[in-house]
Amino acid sequence: MPEVSSHVRSLKQSVYASLAEKMKALPEPPIGLHLGDTYAVPPAAARWEGLDLSSPGNYRYSHPSGLPVLLEELATKLVRENGLAATADWVQVTCGATHALHSAVHTLLQPDDGILILSPYWPLFGGMVRCLGAVEHEVTFEDLEMRPGVKALYFANPNNPDGRVYTREELERLASFACEHDLWVISDECYEHYLYDGNRHISIASLPGMSERTVSVYSFSKSYAMAGHRVGYLCAHPQVMLWLRRLTNHSIYNLSPSLQKAALAVLREGDAFVKEWSPQYASARNRMAEVVHAPKPQGGAYFFPRFENAERAWDFVERALQAGVAVAPGAAFGDAYANYVRICFTCVDEPTLEKACVILGRLGHNQGG
Amino acid sequence: MPEVSSHVRSLKQSVYASLAEKMKALPEPPIGLHLGDTYAVPPAAARWEGLDLSSPGNYRYSHPSGLPVLLEELATKLVRENGLAATADWVQVTCGATHALHSAVHTLLQPDDGILILSPYWPLFGGMVRCLGAVEHEVTFEDLEMRPGVKALYFANPNNPDGRVYTREELERLASFACEHDLWVISDECYEHYLYDGNRHISIASLPGMSERTVSVYSFSKSYAMAGHRVGYLCAHPQVMLWLRRLTNHSIYNLSPSLQKAALAVLREGDAFVKEWSPQYASARNRMAEVVHAPKPQGGAYFFPRFENAERAWDFVERALQAGVAVAPGAAFGDAYANYVRICFTCVDEPTLEKACVILGRLGHNQGG
Repeated sequence: MPEVSSHVRSLKQSVYASLAEKMKALPEPPIGLHLGDTYAVPPAAARWEGLDLSSPGNYRYSHPSGLPVLLEELATKLVRENGLAATADWVQVTCGATHALHSAVHTLLQPDDGILILSPYWPLFGGMVRCLGAVEHEVTFEDLEMRPGVKALYFANPNNPDGRVYTREELERLASFACEHDLWVISDECYEHYLYDGNRHISIASLPGMSERTVSVYSFSKSYAMAGHRVGYLCAHPQVMLWLRRLTNHSIYNLSPSLQKAALAVLREGDAFVKEWSPQYASARNRMAEVVHAPKPQGGAYFFPRFENAERAWDFVERALQAGVAVAPGAAFGDAYANYVRICFTCVDEPTLEKACVILGRLGHNQGG
Repeated sequence: MPEVSSHVRSLKQSVYASLAEKMKALPEPPIGLHLGDTYAVPPAAARWEGLDLSSPGNYRYSHPSGLPVLLEELATKLVRENGLAATADWVQVTCGATHALHSAVHTLLQPDDGILILSPYWPLFGGMVRCLGAVEHEVTFEDLEMRPGVKALYFANPNNPDGRVYTREELERLASFACEHDLWVISDECYEHYLYDGNRHISIASLPGMSERTVSVYSFSKSYAMAGHRVGYLCAHPQVMLWLRRLTNHSIYNLSPSLQKAALAVLREGDAFVKEWSPQYASARNRMAEVVHAPKPQGGAYFFPRFENAERAWDFVERALQAGVAVAPGAAFGDAYANYVRICFTCVDEPTLEKACVILGRLGHNQGG
């Protein structure tokens, strides 16, 4: 047998896959707080029973960029909610935000190019960089500094896993750094609607001079509880979008028009769903804050408690699993985070979360922290 | 603005995009025989109105490899129809065959690796190779020879655009070449059910010693007229599949479970749909053979007539368009094919095809051929 690409061999098994094996050995499935999802059922508009999908066009190829009517509607949303000067020419529909980020990385970087990743960060992103043969450099916002060969900066706002929501001043610092070093910015805004305590979401591309060097990534998965539909989208200047479009076309051809119609229907309904669910996520966060002694997240869907060392964190993952709650080991979120654990508070309903919180409280997880 | 990857800049505008601009200038839309699609409506099992999609699981993340029940069913099909010793461990569901091929290229090759592409060939494949920084070498089956740095061989069987169906002897020659030079083989079998005149489809991975070095690519788009659902799949030895899975996971996370359920329902119905449509495609092919003076394709969905030179072929594309029929310029299908034109006979219904054939007959397209 020949050898596969050495770049692909750098892809690690996902943290969920390694947990899945341990979970199989348990007498009954644990409460899964290791995942990043929401237990909400999507708005009626996104559900199959409510959609008119009688057109034969749903079964045929469609526009590689996305349905024109959806691109228009997304541009309107990007102007209104994100403060971007977007038109349909600025938008590309993707197979979830995962595919959007994959397209962005493969369009902006080439082998041996470096990228600064603000850590802690979403695990799959590092793999996307490595499987291209590009080089990831993990840095924190506080210790931001240039490295040789770096062409781009990636960050999530709100961040997964620590829920950080960047202030305008912080974004200005990032913007100024990107301009100074002529960097691309990949801005992952999947959690834009998961905000607490009055924190506001600001898109870095809306800052002066940033729209030309930023590729912004969005998703319907979190905002509208429809991860199963896999609808994400990219926003970028048309000169960059030209290449993002070609790359996206060469990786999936187009996204199913039926899924895009679900997204369109949801967008047209406005923000009622987001407004309905925000307080429920906030309430789940507040409940979990009583048992997890970590900073309350400003946004997103996770607590990210710190432990004295990596052994204590691993020990907590194991003990939680034995007690019936799955949480994600921090090592997945960056080299410097093996002494952390990520716990999702949006992925199970209120009674199940209550059970999980009782178990977590009993574990006294932060005794070493 | 920083620069995008030089690899991505090698992606050409698709032949369809350049035609689309010319088409916009026409007083009315032409009959589109430039595309590769079928006018058939998919079997009832694949249509939204017949599927039970009431489970909330349809709106959530699902298995990155594909629904386990679908993987099992696909393995059964691969054993029965393709003669492969496949189990669910050998299969990965993808976002159409485009995504399957993208995953295969990115898993097997790395920058500067070469790949032999049996030409003429499907245009997007070359772009997938270039955007990784790998090197495409176009060769014909008859002039097959090794080039420096080559790690893989790609071919489609039946072929798009020329409809070639490889015989067992021809596949044995390819297999022996691949073994001699220790090459990966990417076998694109999207048109496996489009066969005429008693031609049989044989999967190269079913030949002795080939299952370990072959990644086979399949699609529901052509066989079941459901291109809009974007369901494709990969078959490979589990040691290779391990990496194909990670790459696929890092590019789209997972395919929508709703779309996978449509594919599952279709598979469970058996081959009635394929048997119903085969004679209709054969009949369309026979009608077009009366006006297009090119070899009758053995399989696939296209005629690929040759002209005296590139100018004559372009002239034909232009004149056909003015007369109301869009066809695809041959230059898209390989460096040596600018004097060809591709014409699809499965993408419009019988009365429309009849109109198109009258127009093509009147053009006398092959006068220079």
